[in-house]
Amino acid sequence: MPVISKKGLEMPASPIRKLVPYAEQATKKGKKIYYLNIGQPDIKTPEIALEAVKQNDIKILSYSKSEGSETYRKKITSYYLKNNIKVSSEDIIVTTGGSEALLFTFGTVMDVNDEIIIPEPFYANYNGFSQASGIKVVPVISKIEDDFKLPPIEEFEKLITNKTKAILICNPGNPTGYLYSKEEIQKLAAIVKKHDLFLIADEVYREFTYDGIQHYSIMEEEGLEEYGIMIDSVSKRYSMCGARIGCLVSKNKSVIETALKFAQARLSPPTYAQIASEAALDTPQSYFDDVIEEYVERRNTLIKHLENIEGVKVAKPKGAFYCIAELPIKNSDHFAQWLLEDFDVDNETIMVAPAGGFYSTPGVGLNQIRIAYVLNKESLIKAAHILKEALKVYKD
Amino acid sequence: MPVISKKGLEMPASPIRKLVPYAEQATKKGKKIYYLNIGQPDIKTPEIALEAVKQNDIKILSYSKSEGSETYRKKITSYYLKNNIKVSSEDIIVTTGGSEALLFTFGTVMDVNDEIIIPEPFYANYNGFSQASGIKVVPVISKIEDDFKLPPIEEFEKLITNKTKAILICNPGNPTGYLYSKEEIQKLAAIVKKHDLFLIADEVYREFTYDGIQHYSIMEEEGLEEYGIMIDSVSKRYSMCGARIGCLVSKNKSVIETALKFAQARLSPPTYAQIASEAALDTPQSYFDDVIEEYVERRNTLIKHLENIEGVKVAKPKGAFYCIAELPIKNSDHFAQWLLEDFDVDNETIMVAPAGGFYSTPGVGLNQIRIAYVLNKESLIKAAHILKEALKVYKD
Repeated sequence: MPVISKKGLEMPASPIRKLVPYAEQATKKGKKIYYLNIGQPDIKTPEIALEAVKQNDIKILSYSKSEGSETYRKKITSYYLKNNIKVSSEDIIVTTGGSEALLFTFGTVMDVNDEIIIPEPFYANYNGFSQASGIKVVPVISKIEDDFKLPPIEEFEKLITNKTKAILICNPGNPTGYLYSKEEIQKLAAIVKKHDLFLIADEVYREFTYDGIQHYSIMEEEGLEEYGIMIDSVSKRYSMCGARIGCLVSKNKSVIETALKFAQARLSPPTYAQIASEAALDTPQSYFDDVIEEYVERRNTLIKHLENIEGVKVAKPKGAFYCIAELPIKNSDHFAQWLLEDFDVDNETIMVAPAGGFYSTPGVGLNQIRIAYVLNKESLIKAAHILKEALKVYKD
Repeated sequence: MPVISKKGLEMPASPIRKLVPYAEQATKKGKKIYYLNIGQPDIKTPEIALEAVKQNDIKILSYSKSEGSETYRKKITSYYLKNNIKVSSEDIIVTTGGSEALLFTFGTVMDVNDEIIIPEPFYANYNGFSQASGIKVVPVISKIEDDFKLPPIEEFEKLITNKTKAILICNPGNPTGYLYSKEEIQKLAAIVKKHDLFLIADEVYREFTYDGIQHYSIMEEEGLEEYGIMIDSVSKRYSMCGARIGCLVSKNKSVIETALKFAQARLSPPTYAQIASEAALDTPQSYFDDVIEEYVERRNTLIKHLENIEGVKVAKPKGAFYCIAELPIKNSDHFAQWLLEDFDVDNETIMVAPAGGFYSTPGVGLNQIRIAYVLNKESLIKAAHILKEALKVYKD
């Protein structure tokens, strides 16, 4: 019999999705589930984007350019300019989701066995993309006690070897909700310049910042032109996760030229989704104002209710729509499965993401879960109640 | 300054797309170009698929399942059954184009430095996906003199090492138009079973077979269940290359389980495109009858006109919509660029794909081009005429 690759066998299962079969079983049994495991917002996609697709007059659904449609790439530069990011369409490659932008970036800047430093906990699929690319994640640990702020520079420098090619941040952060300050970005800029590394910033949650704090992009930082690679996506911005449109942005011409070769090999990003994404750029500011207001209320509601549960520790997120909660348990993988299989309050339960998958250091984060506050307040209150009741009876 | 990876630097430029900037220049100068370089058919997408997207009632454009929508995966099994391929929805992972199905397959069955044997010339992007995956293509040469039929088994066996993990075929073949016989598939089955290899078959041109010859899928071959992985795509079948929907099909449970982990990391295939693909399954047979009739006429027209050009050698394709033509020149990269930059007949020229990129053996195929007969007959006649005139004056 032929055998599966070591790469495939060691490919991590997604902590966000691996419990899906248990959720399906629970649903079959008539249990209602509050889905807090995945960043799939219940927010409506802007009408303008949906309508553009309905009104399309395509007769032949053909390939677009590998780097994405010209009109979309041109138009998105105005969006960036509004966010104080000055780029031209030539600095942009449209990708199939932020996921593909990350894969192209990893291929462009790293060879097999090269190392990338990532503040931990981090978006779980960074592990998957690293495994798929044959590169090694070197975590630098940020702590719930410090609200997950950037570890000191010395902690990064201790980890840099001749294999280190890049530092990757997610800002605002999934799963922590942490928002890096301008000073923190400048610290990172100093490190990458000193050590000739790339600074990759996943900024897909740019719009989702709270408490009046402004997002500071790596693309705003002068002198970082040759070092910076920004990852972006329309998924969360316009609640259109199913479009699968993202992009890779860099002022470094060699990065764009190289990433384009990866883009050409897969031919083009999806056409309908580019139509939706281009139209979405005309979404009125009021849409975002409403969405942000909603998320702030959700965050406040969730955090308040979590803090009321004995033994639960949580860092208040300043951006995105996730938080990490530390629970008085030993193994959140088991706990999350148990919630689906063996627990309910009035036939309702919750699905959460065990946080172990958001760490690459083995054994860390096992008493934590990630909660995505993508449901309305009433649901979040119910969900927190279910968690509270569950913790009363759960035994590791 | 940070540096680009060796992987990125050595990533091959797409022979189909690398000449695009020259074409754009030529167009700017007012030259008309007949595009024979890319498999983008001018055939209309079935109305039923386009209409389904227009009539969608999506309010939140959300992620689909990582393995693709349930309804699409169920419905496509009936399509396969009609093609004598007996699979269940659980044997299928929906991907973003056939491209992604290949990437998942490579990750699933091969580690870095592993080897895959591919009859050469082959679809150029197999080189790109192999480079991206860190694996090595070992070509087994098929010749234009033999109409590109499968080389003898001994040629394969000579190449098998302990690093060999799979054999990959494209059937019907891009760029050769070759259609493997049942006997050839059985020969391959015997080799992979003897040596514990996977047999990967890219069957995206299944419908496009001519002269009454039937396509024989690796999925029809009994005893190959644990060895076979089929790559598929809606791009050519329904002239919807811009959808970016394909799939990976295998009866080997470990292959599906492992590929699903790669699929989960990138979250999901595009939602709109899945709606189009599901609806396209109801395309009436008359659509295909018309399309095949059209392609047969195009093929006959093109081949006749190519054979009339002195010094041009061509193998008559039995499937797909490509052919390889050998020209009385030394360097088709240079020739193809020259056609765009420095040649015209009444201000019209042609864009072709230099065939070097369809070989991994250096220096082979440099006097060949790939022609996609995706234009109407009148255009093909004009294109052949332009080629004829060009060869009269071109100097290497």
